[in-house]
Amino acid sequence: MRPRPASIPYPIERLGIDSRGADEDPVTVEEPLEIRINGEAIAVTMRTPGNDEELAAGFCLTEGIVCDGDDIAGVAFCGDSEEDNVVDVEVDDRDRRNAIERSRRASYVSSSCGICGKQTLDRIDQIVERFDPGAMSVEYRKVLALPAKMRRRQTVFSRTGGLHSAALFDRDGKLLGLREDVGRHNAVDKIVGSRLLQHFDDHREQSILLVSGRASFEIVQKAAVARIPFVAAVSAPSSLAIDLARRLGMTLVGFVRGSRLNVYAGEHRIEG
Amino acid sequence: MRPRPASIPYPIERLGIDSRGADEDPVTVEEPLEIRINGEAIAVTMRTPGNDEELAAGFCLTEGIVCDGDDIAGVAFCGDSEEDNVVDVEVDDRDRRNAIERSRRASYVSSSCGICGKQTLDRIDQIVERFDPGAMSVEYRKVLALPAKMRRRQTVFSRTGGLHSAALFDRDGKLLGLREDVGRHNAVDKIVGSRLLQHFDDHREQSILLVSGRASFEIVQKAAVARIPFVAAVSAPSSLAIDLARRLGMTLVGFVRGSRLNVYAGEHRIEG
Repeated sequence: MRPRPASIPYPIERLGIDSRGADEDPVTVEEPLEIRINGEAIAVTMRTPGNDEELAAGFCLTEGIVCDGDDIAGVAFCGDSEEDNVVDVEVDDRDRRNAIERSRRASYVSSSCGICGKQTLDRIDQIVERFDPGAMSVEYRKVLALPAKMRRRQTVFSRTGGLHSAALFDRDGKLLGLREDVGRHNAVDKIVGSRLLQHFDDHREQSILLVSGRASFEIVQKAAVARIPFVAAVSAPSSLAIDLARRLGMTLVGFVRGSRLNVYAGEHRIEG
Repeated sequence: MRPRPASIPYPIERLGIDSRGADEDPVTVEEPLEIRINGEAIAVTMRTPGNDEELAAGFCLTEGIVCDGDDIAGVAFCGDSEEDNVVDVEVDDRDRRNAIERSRRASYVSSSCGICGKQTLDRIDQIVERFDPGAMSVEYRKVLALPAKMRRRQTVFSRTGGLHSAALFDRDGKLLGLREDVGRHNAVDKIVGSRLLQHFDDHREQSILLVSGRASFEIVQKAAVARIPFVAAVSAPSSLAIDLARRLGMTLVGFVRGSRLNVYAGEHRIEG
């Protein structure tokens, strides 16, 4: 069987100060993988396809479920194809119930049998509505200016170099707030929560979320559930993040650096 | 109450080609936070202390449990002090049981009542033994050379800019293998799993794990459980990652760049 690709070319729009054009961009693939032990679902992790048997075996080792290679009788994909994204590890579990149970509690446990990127997106439809395409737009130059505004406020990062940050801006590019955290999803939850606790609820659908690093599925999902239509990232987005943004009618831009940015979804929200 | 610090100075050893000296380095604080809804534990997240009420409120919004600020009656720390790291969100949950249950299943659920960084470290002692301090050492110049060896093999990153990588090296700095993934913990599980499935079990205690980004608690924990005594990061470690490495007698170095690196734990494993 051919190995599944770790990156896929996506059609994008590249914007520069004096240029604008369609192009392709290689994007890192992100899809869920369900790890089972002796047929029982233990964890679901968002990962890049490839070496999935190794991922499942390594997970069993680093979670303390097995001690060495002899403890694993076999690793195999379940279902009709690798694209079902389910791997089962066969171990002698007589003395390992405690470790398996501890790991199961510490991880995302899927209630469905078998998952793939498609199903993950389908599930989103049940909880999030599409965004109104005409609800807001932002000038291109104002998007480019966001990262510098964020950096000026990253006080902890500038000391330690060890933090993610998330900032909210209004459609005029005015900074509404910024939070830093060792976890990128926590930085998003903090800035969204700060607005929530101040009861600025009506502004969310008119705002832009900027993250200091990459835009994963989880980041775009959190923005979608919070009804923030515009996500910008200083670095690269993942495939599933792009798929979700396109599906929900959101705007997703990446590599916002200097005078350039890449538009991965929802170009209609960018003016000029 | 004074806000808790987001970074703390740690005593470290700075190594350069012709210099070696004790210094202090500001390190991002990482500690677990338990989020409760109406007294029930829903999630534990590793976060940087500060704005924890916002984090809990934002989590409730981005997980789809509440829709706006009016849905939250209050947010408060539990226990005697903020350092117990438990926050409770009061919501009217009559129509929200499904969303709460979905979120609870999707998150780490702690079995203990109340957690803090100290307890997280205590729990590690139950599953991981201290490393033998004399078991291995590595020449300083060989540590410095590791990131360049990793970069030459980061094939997907060089295309997409959107991936973490983890590599294993032997004590002579020879690359044993490298894996890339959209999740940094997955990259570690993949490279460790690849060795496991090849039954190279006896080499782990003589090897070095290098990660392309930051070293969080989870990365050092995975290395510890896999019995890898030496963790190197291109970027910064977190406070809890350092605490764990020191406690278990591991070596942890960060900011391995050019001719310099910072030693956060286990300097005795670095020669020359």
